[in-house]
Amino acid sequence: MGKSEIRNVCKVSFDKPAAEQPNLHNRWHPDIPFAGTIKDGETVKIECLDWTGGQIKNNDSADDVKNVDLTKVHYLSGPFEIEGAEKGDLLLVEIMDVQPFQDQLWGFTGIFDKGNGGGFLDEIYPSAAKAIWDFEGIFCSSRHIPHVKFAGLIHPGILGCAPSAEVLDTWNTREAELIAANKLDRDVALPPQPLNVHAGSADEALTEKIGKEGARTIPGRPEHGGNCDIKNLSRGSKVYLPVHVPGAKFSVGDLHFSQGDGEISFCGAIEMAGVITINFKVIKNGVADLALKSPIYIPGPVEPSFGPGRYIYFEGFSVDEHGKQHYMDVAVAYRQTSLRCIEYLRRFGYSDYQSYLLLSCAPVQGHVAGIVDIPNACTTLGLPIDIFDFDISPTAALAKTDKLNMGSCAFETGVEEGRVTAGGKNSKVSFGGGLTYKE
Amino acid sequence: MGKSEIRNVCKVSFDKPAAEQPNLHNRWHPDIPFAGTIKDGETVKIECLDWTGGQIKNNDSADDVKNVDLTKVHYLSGPFEIEGAEKGDLLLVEIMDVQPFQDQLWGFTGIFDKGNGGGFLDEIYPSAAKAIWDFEGIFCSSRHIPHVKFAGLIHPGILGCAPSAEVLDTWNTREAELIAANKLDRDVALPPQPLNVHAGSADEALTEKIGKEGARTIPGRPEHGGNCDIKNLSRGSKVYLPVHVPGAKFSVGDLHFSQGDGEISFCGAIEMAGVITINFKVIKNGVADLALKSPIYIPGPVEPSFGPGRYIYFEGFSVDEHGKQHYMDVAVAYRQTSLRCIEYLRRFGYSDYQSYLLLSCAPVQGHVAGIVDIPNACTTLGLPIDIFDFDISPTAALAKTDKLNMGSCAFETGVEEGRVTAGGKNSKVSFGGGLTYKE
Amino acid sequence: MGKSEIRNVCKVSFDKPAAEQPNLHNRWHPDIPFAGTIKDGETVKIECLDWTGGQIKNNDSADDVKNVDLTKVHYLSGPFEIEGAEKGDLLLVEIMDVQPFQDQLWGFTGIFDKGNGGGFLDEIYPSAAKAIWDFEGIFCSSRHIPHVKFAGLIHPGILGCAPSAEVLDTWNTREAELIAANKLDRDVALPPQPLNVHAGSADEALTEKIGKEGARTIPGRPEHGGNCDIKNLSRGSKVYLPVHVPGAKFSVGDLHFSQGDGEISFCGAIEMAGVITINFKVIKNGVADLALKSPIYIPGPVEPSFGPGRYIYFEGFSVDEHGKQHYMDVAVAYRQTSLRCIEYLRRFGYSDYQSYLLLSCAPVQGHVAGIVDIPNACTTLGLPIDIFDFDISPTAALAKTDKLNMGSCAFETGVEEGRVTAGGKNSKVSFGGGLTYKE
Amino acid sequence: MGKSEIRNVCKVSFDKPAAEQPNLHNRWHPDIPFAGTIKDGETVKIECLDWTGGQIKNNDSADDVKNVDLTKVHYLSGPFEIEGAEKGDLLLVEIMDVQPFQDQLWGFTGIFDKGNGGGFLDEIYPSAAKAIWDFEGIFCSSRHIPHVKFAGLIHPGILGCAPSAEVLDTWNTREAELIAANKLDRDVALPPQPLNVHAGSADEALTEKIGKEGARTIPGRPEHGGNCDIKNLSRGSKVYLPVHVPGAKFSVGDLHFSQGDGEISFCGAIEMAGVITINFKVIKNGVADLALKSPIYIPGPVEPSFGPGRYIYFEGFSVDEHGKQHYMDVAVAYRQTSLRCIEYLRRFGYSDYQSYLLLSCAPVQGHVAGIVDIPNACTTLGLPIDIFDFDISPTAALAKTDKLNMGSCAFETGVEEGRVTAGGKNSKVSFGGGLTYKE
Repeated sequence: MGKSEIRNVCKVSFDKPAAEQPNLHNRWHPDIPFAGTIKDGETVKIECLDWTGGQIKNNDSADDVKNVDLTKVHYLSGPFEIEGAEKGDLLLVEIMDVQPFQDQLWGFTGIFDKGNGGGFLDEIYPSAAKAIWDFEGIFCSSRHIPHVKFAGLIHPGILGCAPSAEVLDTWNTREAELIAANKLDRDVALPPQPLNVHAGSADEALTEKIGKEGARTIPGRPEHGGNCDIKNLSRGSKVYLPVHVPGAKFSVGDLHFSQGDGEISFCGAIEMAGVITINFKVIKNGVADLALKSPIYIPGPVEPSFGPGRYIYFEGFSVDEHGKQHYMDVAVAYRQTSLRCIEYLRRFGYSDYQSYLLLSCAPVQGHVAGIVDIPNACTTLGLPIDIFDFDISPTAALAKTDKLNMGSCAFETGVEEGRVTAGGKNSKVSFGGGLTYKE
Repeated sequence: MGKSEIRNVCKVSFDKPAAEQPNLHNRWHPDIPFAGTIKDGETVKIECLDWTGGQIKNNDSADDVKNVDLTKVHYLSGPFEIEGAEKGDLLLVEIMDVQPFQDQLWGFTGIFDKGNGGGFLDEIYPSAAKAIWDFEGIFCSSRHIPHVKFAGLIHPGILGCAPSAEVLDTWNTREAELIAANKLDRDVALPPQPLNVHAGSADEALTEKIGKEGARTIPGRPEHGGNCDIKNLSRGSKVYLPVHVPGAKFSVGDLHFSQGDGEISFCGAIEMAGVITINFKVIKNGVADLALKSPIYIPGPVEPSFGPGRYIYFEGFSVDEHGKQHYMDVAVAYRQTSLRCIEYLRRFGYSDYQSYLLLSCAPVQGHVAGIVDIPNACTTLGLPIDIFDFDISPTAALAKTDKLNMGSCAFETGVEEGRVTAGGKNSKVSFGGGLTYKE
Repeated sequence: MGKSEIRNVCKVSFDKPAAEQPNLHNRWHPDIPFAGTIKDGETVKIECLDWTGGQIKNNDSADDVKNVDLTKVHYLSGPFEIEGAEKGDLLLVEIMDVQPFQDQLWGFTGIFDKGNGGGFLDEIYPSAAKAIWDFEGIFCSSRHIPHVKFAGLIHPGILGCAPSAEVLDTWNTREAELIAANKLDRDVALPPQPLNVHAGSADEALTEKIGKEGARTIPGRPEHGGNCDIKNLSRGSKVYLPVHVPGAKFSVGDLHFSQGDGEISFCGAIEMAGVITINFKVIKNGVADLALKSPIYIPGPVEPSFGPGRYIYFEGFSVDEHGKQHYMDVAVAYRQTSLRCIEYLRRFGYSDYQSYLLLSCAPVQGHVAGIVDIPNACTTLGLPIDIFDFDISPTAALAKTDKLNMGSCAFETGVEEGRVTAGGKNSKVSFGGGLTYKE
Repeated sequence: MGKSEIRNVCKVSFDKPAAEQPNLHNRWHPDIPFAGTIKDGETVKIECLDWTGGQIKNNDSADDVKNVDLTKVHYLSGPFEIEGAEKGDLLLVEIMDVQPFQDQLWGFTGIFDKGNGGGFLDEIYPSAAKAIWDFEGIFCSSRHIPHVKFAGLIHPGILGCAPSAEVLDTWNTREAELIAANKLDRDVALPPQPLNVHAGSADEALTEKIGKEGARTIPGRPEHGGNCDIKNLSRGSKVYLPVHVPGAKFSVGDLHFSQGDGEISFCGAIEMAGVITINFKVIKNGVADLALKSPIYIPGPVEPSFGPGRYIYFEGFSVDEHGKQHYMDVAVAYRQTSLRCIEYLRRFGYSDYQSYLLLSCAPVQGHVAGIVDIPNACTTLGLPIDIFDFDISPTAALAKTDKLNMGSCAFETGVEEGRVTAGGKNSKVSFGGGLTYKE
């Protein structure tokens, strides 16, 4: 009773060449045989190789990038039959998760040599270069670009349904016209090329046909999306993909741990092998009903903020400043939480009264964190870091730099400022040097 | 044709006492006369005094806080007749804006003396204290709490509709029971008190009645909300308020430029006088239809993040690195924008190739900013600040501290590292010391 | 004591032509006389006309847009002397606020006729058209595009410092080369043109010179920013502007209540007249120290989310379900807040036990809202709207549509499902049909 | 070269009882033997059982919840020796990730019977109940609470370092005083109890001692945190934990896929077994340097927004409306992207000119998505969903409800409104009914 695993419809191997694995392919063509079948409504896992099919290694030389064989890239997983999908339908693809393999926790970013691939800035930066990234949970960092760490906005670079013969013909025609008109000193598009063609489980004759006709995977194209390289088409996103052939023939690959807008160095994202979890739903007649000429998508709910939270959270429990245990008293807990914050701010030079005023009016977050674990209610108070014009982080506090001159708040007449930090006029409670309460 | 002003239904004066202004009042009672009429669906402006009615001054002593007369506070604006509202309806209040008066750009936070008002931590901090805050646009800062500046999450502390006689009776009964059972050494609730009663335009006899029966304004109460002091019930919020009497008798006041959860020092928010802009809509029979026993609200869309944006944005235009003007070429502009960012990162020790790799894979934001101002397309590139483990802000860049050791990215064999920062192997473009392009 | 107003350095008039107001100008040129002086560190207000200088009216015809005189636009406020600024410095401009005039609460978006201005899609949409927008607080809406309302990301379209003679010469040279090379059937750039030149307080001879040399204001340019039209260069943003001439000669104008990336219809933002509040700081030698070739900026903290908050917030107070008043008891308040939410969810078909389970595990926000207003603690509980796959908003609740089939949670053996919603097995509390507690 | 796996320091078994696994324990005590050793600076994986040690099953009866043995819960993983940690240090714990086991993709939320555990609302809801949740990637949903799906804010309920003998004595003393003074009709705290004690690899004699002295795990406590149940102490969070004994003796457990503030039903979170990935760093003398009496934390960067993205993103490529292929032309791609959006909005009744105006001024997001995949530049345009007062989602578009009356924008004189939607006056391009371009 109750599901506990998700079906894996595409296992890939690192021990044999991509070109020998029948559930992979590197062309867009309607005749590539199905690599598996997925039910309408089903959620499955699909394993993917990195986009170079393993040509780039986890080392400190970019020679592999320089010499990469660009006819052996973009091995996509699929194509998969989505039951019930027909031409004119939309395939609603919800990306439930993307993860690297747990025993392959790394990826790479490359700059191609200007003579073999190039990139957006290749006239200025013509050499091949590379950075290897290590993954630790949601974060990545690189020995080649020190002092950088961030959470990945992980996503597939390529996903789409196979073109019909008509759509494929449109592509080949318009790209051939561009090539024919080219006067630039560089390739402007890549025509079909019967070299290193991998057509999944197709036999030799079919593979030859696909090699002659099949569209290359480099550009994204308006009719199906394909290699769109959109950085926030990430976890939780819902993509609406036009279906052109029976069964949809959905393919996916080119996983990215992260990418910037433009993916400017061409091999620009953090390329990786991994597993994507997808839910599929067929929307009958959706292309006409939404009049879609190109895919649309709605981003998911977990886009990283690309910074740590900008609050320091203090915890407090229902044990008062005299050490007395109270039973589930949230007000006592919140009072203690406030005091923890006031104590923390002392080291930057603020008097307790200044901090008490500040906690009252600054937009602190006061939460009922736990209210069922007897006898201790737990509350938290989040102090926004950025309302200060100096650094109040624990790192800064530990650095023990000079305190700023914090002046004073206004007091009633007769209060000696020196005493108020230590508990205030007429207070029965005073604070010793160790910042602990004493009577 | 076309509306160009918003009707102001409540002007307040700073030149005469609050108690003499007939559109203000300081009790909750169904018999306080209407201060004006508002149409169902109308948007109006309502001016409000600060909650002490002007007792607290913009100076450097807290004696005014210590000696505040707490029987002369919470002068609310209203009550207003909302046309068509009847008992059992909901009043949908949308807060379109809250602003301080443009010639009164300041507010205050107070700590009351333990003997006159007190607060959440008064056993530890018994003295009166005060901070004055200056407003500059969306920001506030205080000479009494230096090195703090933040955007206000501006909101009304009090808003609600008048209780019916029955609801008022419930309040008075249950609070009297609490007072009767009190064994603490402090006030636990404030009963009706015929002292300094201001009942708007009521005559003497009615004012006397209201003084004897009218509920005090300090606590919020479940049946109508009232002094709820909710920090994010701010601009753009929609509040659903139960209506208990014909015409609703809506009142509002106690404006806060900002407040923390709990408003812990009691006079804790940044208290201010100002103008609130509200849209009113009546939902017939809404109390039963939503079965509301207390107000609910949906927060608005402009909650500050309480920090600056965590990106540095670079601008680029369609003038290339040779100074040539291109016509609306977005790719040229985006290429220039990328170069601006690479140049910026040099001063922290990164080589151009490291930055080029980083721009490709880090989640940079690449926007088409302006695409219609001939001949220059303008693009922007936002670099996330927090992916670095050191400070890359302009402030840090200007401080000229020592560069970190940034190592190197991987290169193809034969590339001299020293040269690649300066344009790369075989490059026709090199960079001089002044970081300008030369051929 | 204590500042209470902000100095207004530029008043504009709606009663006389823009061309007659000496603190406005419509060319970039180093010789335009100063319109005022601002201290290093000072915050000031600057009034601005809309970018057409009042040519577009609040009515329902686009003839004014069709016939707009494009030689009479971009009347900028300034140029202002910033004390101490010199060539090579950076001017740090912090945008403290932007507001429309309170008696001119409207703006416009136009599509220019293809023959007079045009725009990004003019080959497809060649006619002139217009939408008038009304402002109510932070929101705008238009009778010409019904069913749309949003919070403005308000910003200046143009800001920058005057070019030096050398910089101006660079601009004129490179744009002339583009014009000379033009083979398109449209203008690709606008050269200096001595027609309707407004050079502020310049005398006739100087105005003639400025007309011959002065750069047009349409394009943004890399050396100073200018008409960059960046949609999130909004409130709270800090812009770093290169200074080219003594005193900086800062100008600003073309205020937008909102704009989309690209400002695609050319007259595309919501254009308005209004007041911008700016703080100015001079960073000596900043151009070299940051090696800036173009402005950079850090966005502010109040970017709207362009949707309402995605939570429904429930309020609860320390009055328990038997009507008993408790003194500042946060747990009682939070328990009541939870019950308010459980009651609310009943109308969608959930049993109380389902909702109780859901409140425990869904990411609800539980806040200590007010903790100082005796005798009532106030807590809030925010229920995320989007975790449901149907609409739980008050609007939907009021619509009284059919309930979905909500099934049941798992129960212990022997519990009758029908009873548990009404208080549970062995419960002394049951719920009547009116959703009120009865014993 | 290059790390590719993360060390797993704690494997748990589902095949034998928790009480027989030596790397688990269910008391806080300084003498529980180390379960493993972790380096200062190391990142490791730690497997954890669910907090009931497997007592709750994936089925449709809550009898297991009703009869749960609460003396057999909170089997924590650890305690681990952190090399170099000493009393007075802080342990900086960075939560790199938390994941369920891939073959156990489910969790549970329970309501305890009032007579066995109870909860926050047990006086009103006394019966046991349960909901089982299925996990699919980042999302969870339950057959017991239909029509709810959300992304988990996944976190550990319990983490902390072992108390010293002195700290333990303080806990036992103050909680005993509370128990002694109890006059309520329920347990207010749980004293040490030598029943079902699991002390990891301790021998019999030591286990007996730990049973008599060891603190129960239910409450969080100020000195070390422990069972704090804080909902956003999630992935990416950095927690600063006081160290009380040599080697820190860090323990963790009680993983939650999600929890609401308060965890109100006691067994309230979505409880699960799984794997937590943590980076450990020792901060020497940190307790005194930060004067921490309780843990503090800084939340991570990936808090879900608990809703889908509130934008619909349109994709466009550099193939123009005549089917012509352009080479990497971003302006063509952005123009197409704009047209895709205009076409989409037609079905809701907007004319093309209205949409063109709206795209110009509403805060649409225009991104350079991909700029290196020849020949197609790819741009995206994000249209904010919530600026409309009706539903523009694809789901709504597919529902084919009646169109609203959208009126018209303002036009220049002489334009026939009927024609402008179809391409505009003088346009060479018109649109057929099928929403495709024809010449």
